[in-house]
Amino acid sequence: MSLYLRELQTRLEDGQERVSSRALGASLGLTDAQIRKDLALFGSLGQPGRGYQIIDVLKRLRQMMGRDQSWPVVVVGIGNIGRAITSYGQFKTEGFDIVGVFDIDPKVVGTKSAGRVVRSMADLRATIVEHDVRLGVMTVPKASAQDVADQLIAAGVVGILNFAPKRITAPPGVSIVSVDFTVSLEQLAFQVWLAGNFEDGTK
Amino acid sequence: MSLYLRELQTRLEDGQERVSSRALGASLGLTDAQIRKDLALFGSLGQPGRGYQIIDVLKRLRQMMGRDQSWPVVVVGIGNIGRAITSYGQFKTEGFDIVGVFDIDPKVVGTKSAGRVVRSMADLRATIVEHDVRLGVMTVPKASAQDVADQLIAAGVVGILNFAPKRITAPPGVSIVSVDFTVSLEQLAFQVWLAGNFEDGTK
Repeated sequence: MSLYLRELQTRLEDGQERVSSRALGASLGLTDAQIRKDLALFGSLGQPGRGYQIIDVLKRLRQMMGRDQSWPVVVVGIGNIGRAITSYGQFKTEGFDIVGVFDIDPKVVGTKSAGRVVRSMADLRATIVEHDVRLGVMTVPKASAQDVADQLIAAGVVGILNFAPKRITAPPGVSIVSVDFTVSLEQLAFQVWLAGNFEDGTK
Repeated sequence: MSLYLRELQTRLEDGQERVSSRALGASLGLTDAQIRKDLALFGSLGQPGRGYQIIDVLKRLRQMMGRDQSWPVVVVGIGNIGRAITSYGQFKTEGFDIVGVFDIDPKVVGTKSAGRVVRSMADLRATIVEHDVRLGVMTVPKASAQDVADQLIAAGVVGILNFAPKRITAPPGVSIVSVDFTVSLEQLAFQVWLAGNFEDGTK
């Protein structure tokens, strides 16, 4: 089971969303029939020709391991994206519980975001310790990203979802996942461009 | 050159961010020395042990092909994420020019988002045609995502950056790239969990 976890996790980290039983078998040294049998035991069924949704398989493995508890999360940076994140009902459904929202701006501190009072950075550490928070979401400007990451990590956070368009340096053992809208839009433009759909118009 | 483009594009679509000269050589039937020589000609240098940043190589290829013009973009859905997108200076720098912002809500239409007047959906088609827009960003609720995508495509958009947590159906030739915050947070949680960092705390 941990072999599956590692392999699926690696593929997910590489950005892969789906995997076929054949590709998984080749990686793990098993036949694709065996893979399909094992994953069916975990409750996962692939789609013919499309394979398995990696996130779904990992979720089922997590449930089987009794790890479907909720995860406390802090959000730092209550600009537009921070507000979107705090008001995003899907997080709660998926087991992420936002236990604190923070901002550096005194004009924002004390206001509400999706029903939660925005707190000052001075309270960050206490909240992380009190709720035993391991995950932080950072929607702060580029210039303060590393500093905020350092504060989160110093207080005990070991996983950061980073929305700043800047690479964060973190000690070993700390995981960083980045969301960069420009990279996504670039990716889209290339797909369109290669499909030949810019040929006749936008020159 | 188009061989490189296709191969790099495919890897990018698979979510890969970096590639080594060896892996690229294996895919293209060339030695890694040849790959390094070719990519150096395009102006791209890999980092030893880390390989090439795929987006960077593609950008250089694009410049070489004279394709570094700006791309007009429309944004539909001016909630928190839509506001973040329209005020995001990085897009302009990277050659994306937001030529229109739209919302379905009469209370939002006519207000401003980052200096741009939000227009009604009735004006969407005219704007797309006028500016020959090929790219659309959709930050709308799940329930209206497919309908908005259909409207964009009908008016001539061939690439959609979708922020709704819903899979969009599109005809062949139309590219969709999705950004899903919950998937990113799940991915982070799995990385942390597999690193063993939930072991001693959050049970």
